[in-house]
Amino acid sequence: MTEVGRGMGRSQFSRRAFTTAATAAAFAPLVMSGQASAAPVDKTATAPTGVLPRRITLYAENLPNGEMGYGLEPGKATIPGPLIEMVEGETLEIELVNNSDVTASLHVHGVDYEVTSDGTRMNDSVVEPGGRRTYVWRTHAQGRRSGGTIEPGSAGYWHYHDHVVGSDHGTGGIKKGLYGPLVVRRKGDVLPDKTFTVVFNDMLINNRRGEGPHFLAKIGERVEFIVITHGSAFHTFHIHGHRWADNRTGLLEGPQDPSRIIDTKTTGPAESFGFQVIAGERVGPGAWMYHCHVQSHSDMGMVGVFMVADEKGNVPGHDMGGMTHNPDMGTMPH
Amino acid sequence: MTEVGRGMGRSQFSRRAFTTAATAAAFAPLVMSGQASAAPVDKTATAPTGVLPRRITLYAENLPNGEMGYGLEPGKATIPGPLIEMVEGETLEIELVNNSDVTASLHVHGVDYEVTSDGTRMNDSVVEPGGRRTYVWRTHAQGRRSGGTIEPGSAGYWHYHDHVVGSDHGTGGIKKGLYGPLVVRRKGDVLPDKTFTVVFNDMLINNRRGEGPHFLAKIGERVEFIVITHGSAFHTFHIHGHRWADNRTGLLEGPQDPSRIIDTKTTGPAESFGFQVIAGERVGPGAWMYHCHVQSHSDMGMVGVFMVADEKGNVPGHDMGGMTHNPDMGTMPH
Amino acid sequence: MTEVGRGMGRSQFSRRAFTTAATAAAFAPLVMSGQASAAPVDKTATAPTGVLPRRITLYAENLPNGEMGYGLEPGKATIPGPLIEMVEGETLEIELVNNSDVTASLHVHGVDYEVTSDGTRMNDSVVEPGGRRTYVWRTHAQGRRSGGTIEPGSAGYWHYHDHVVGSDHGTGGIKKGLYGPLVVRRKGDVLPDKTFTVVFNDMLINNRRGEGPHFLAKIGERVEFIVITHGSAFHTFHIHGHRWADNRTGLLEGPQDPSRIIDTKTTGPAESFGFQVIAGERVGPGAWMYHCHVQSHSDMGMVGVFMVADEKGNVPGHDMGGMTHNPDMGTMPH
Repeated sequence: MTEVGRGMGRSQFSRRAFTTAATAAAFAPLVMSGQASAAPVDKTATAPTGVLPRRITLYAENLPNGEMGYGLEPGKATIPGPLIEMVEGETLEIELVNNSDVTASLHVHGVDYEVTSDGTRMNDSVVEPGGRRTYVWRTHAQGRRSGGTIEPGSAGYWHYHDHVVGSDHGTGGIKKGLYGPLVVRRKGDVLPDKTFTVVFNDMLINNRRGEGPHFLAKIGERVEFIVITHGSAFHTFHIHGHRWADNRTGLLEGPQDPSRIIDTKTTGPAESFGFQVIAGERVGPGAWMYHCHVQSHSDMGMVGVFMVADEKGNVPGHDMGGMTHNPDMGTMPH
Repeated sequence: MTEVGRGMGRSQFSRRAFTTAATAAAFAPLVMSGQASAAPVDKTATAPTGVLPRRITLYAENLPNGEMGYGLEPGKATIPGPLIEMVEGETLEIELVNNSDVTASLHVHGVDYEVTSDGTRMNDSVVEPGGRRTYVWRTHAQGRRSGGTIEPGSAGYWHYHDHVVGSDHGTGGIKKGLYGPLVVRRKGDVLPDKTFTVVFNDMLINNRRGEGPHFLAKIGERVEFIVITHGSAFHTFHIHGHRWADNRTGLLEGPQDPSRIIDTKTTGPAESFGFQVIAGERVGPGAWMYHCHVQSHSDMGMVGVFMVADEKGNVPGHDMGGMTHNPDMGTMPH
Repeated sequence: MTEVGRGMGRSQFSRRAFTTAATAAAFAPLVMSGQASAAPVDKTATAPTGVLPRRITLYAENLPNGEMGYGLEPGKATIPGPLIEMVEGETLEIELVNNSDVTASLHVHGVDYEVTSDGTRMNDSVVEPGGRRTYVWRTHAQGRRSGGTIEPGSAGYWHYHDHVVGSDHGTGGIKKGLYGPLVVRRKGDVLPDKTFTVVFNDMLINNRRGEGPHFLAKIGERVEFIVITHGSAFHTFHIHGHRWADNRTGLLEGPQDPSRIIDTKTTGPAESFGFQVIAGERVGPGAWMYHCHVQSHSDMGMVGVFMVADEKGNVPGHDMGGMTHNPDMGTMPH
């Protein structure tokens, strides 16, 4: 594990951006594991309706070893950047402060934005070193158009990334780490206890050398995974012992939902999806690998472990003493 | 842009093949942009029921620079070939006239055809240079089999291509440009105002060198995209500022439709999908990139622009004077 | 065709593992073609409810030319391994006997298993040469959790494979042939007359050199395809003249099912899907290619033929005399 990797691990504690003042309490992070945002919500808690426009500041910064990251505070950039959550109907104004030494930008998937918030050089919406610019992301709920067709809502597992560093498509910025997850929830969507983000960025997970991050949950917790792909390679995300529905939420929306239940999914650059599982449901506690199932990629280290602890906090067969106090679980518990 | 590219641009005005005499009027093309077929239909217009068998002639021809194409008239071959539309229940008899200097064929995806219309050497359904052969495509509506299961209808975003030039799988024919879109509509399907076809053919879009085509629509128009992949590479189709449902039509079929809403989709050789968007809906007019999101592919030029004009026909920040009169919008408006 | 190929062909007659004594009769194999499991069931026959735990023995064995396979009897290993069928609610205890000369294991997708049945070195669930170990696979029906969300059932087109030969991810074992199909049916699911398994394993189908297997069915038979991908490459599965719904079963689950109807699907390592078609429905008897539609892959031989015979057992234009008596249909009927 490189110095950069450890640095990232330490700064990944509580990276959740709150959607509204009203929901902030419910999302208050517990420091339980690296990459995780935990909240003691009831399992039937559902997303509220967004009410107030809100404003956050995002910092694009240089990181050691030539990497870059977004952060919610100066000097706190992480890879991936902070998880941003919205509820359909909300508007988010993001002031991007470019503390790096190159022109950077913020391009988002899934939500509503005008060309002035496109984050592309073509639309003159980039930020010079030392500059700042406000990007506006709007969301809306599902509705019906005057013509009768349904207008989909903004809900989804989306993401944001630079679109200008290294090329007009942000190839350099993405490679260096300028990307992060965005989830937009629909009123009534089931809220997770924890959210873990996995970004397949060419042959790395979350830009980590050697292995992907390890995640910790307690049996029965509702765990949300957000999976994003970047770079130029295709992958298949696989997790041991858990499955999900291949639809909008990863949860079957009714008994007749025809969606395929899967534990492996092909995913390519800039695609994103998410799902929730109940940790250890029907399979018990233990160390469950997640990995890219492209054989050459898993052999190169595109793998991490989803550690599911029992009620006492132990993972059978694994010494968890160090893990709960060290959110950087970058060493695989062989 | 090469001479070939410009030539293609000029010949791509009105490539829509009418489904029936009755629907031809509704589909009357307006020359608004390259690659586009426009029709002043009401936004709630829906597909009629197909009634009459119809017959068209398709010409396989050589194009400059070693390329090939299909066309509805001699000397008018284009890449992609003409958009063919059918309504479930229709039968289409296509006489393929091979004006090229190599054996060619017509293989179709999605619809009903006997082995005599397979377009393969294995099934002796190819056409020698100077020859002609009639291929019969049938379609049918969704129904219920005697055993109780549902037989899917033929509706879908399909495509056709050569299956014999260069190899028994048409690798050479496809590479040279012998491919085109086919859409089969279900009675009641919402009709678009315009249809744009994007074919990712290895590292090119619609065989164009340098960049993909640019498309023009007016804000509020219902625009249909048909996305087809050919060759040996995988891609992720992405469009800025617009999204669709990952299902049969790209439109949610009801408030409970569990389909994922996406703006990026992995697609591989011979896959095809389509969707409709309302140009500029909730995001306004402007220049919206569409591109393959595989970073190395977009950096190589797998990108075009979806120009959304305001009510007066202007695209903010871009001089559209030349574009509306030049359907070959092959220069990116940086 | 290599000696190995012919050997595999001969051993692929009846590889179906029966789910219960009660269903064994219905699944009694007819020797009609290589890779096929045939059963004279009524077309509306549906899956029963699983009742009894059952136990099978699986043998991991060396095969000629450095390949390996799983089999239900010693000396009968095949590539792919035997089709294992379960019904939601069933438990299957599989004793793996390792007759090979390397440490091997059994890892499964989709069903419920504890870490002791994970088949990974990390979870100490592998089998030394000469050893044996029992893996337990449980399944469950769809239900509702106490919190109100739906717990998906185990039904699906899944698969099993080694996770330890050659690397900690079984890269060597999979390459050599240690993989097989698993289908879990829901009570009420429509049963097929025959099931064919297609495994894209890098550039080979079912590890065959030269070409993929050919399959034989009679017009009107309900044929199930299970498609699995392994290795490090991505593919697009395509079949001529037949289509399916891109959902859990491949069959539309109701008239409003929004699933896309497709005849080509991108698939990557460890993904699996399945579907049923009525052989020759609306297209008639004949030789219908199935192949990877990545052009370079089909040109390398990733292709086979789905032979649909007429009521008299003849495939128009093809001499089927030798084929019905030779389940190894490894020669393409050009």
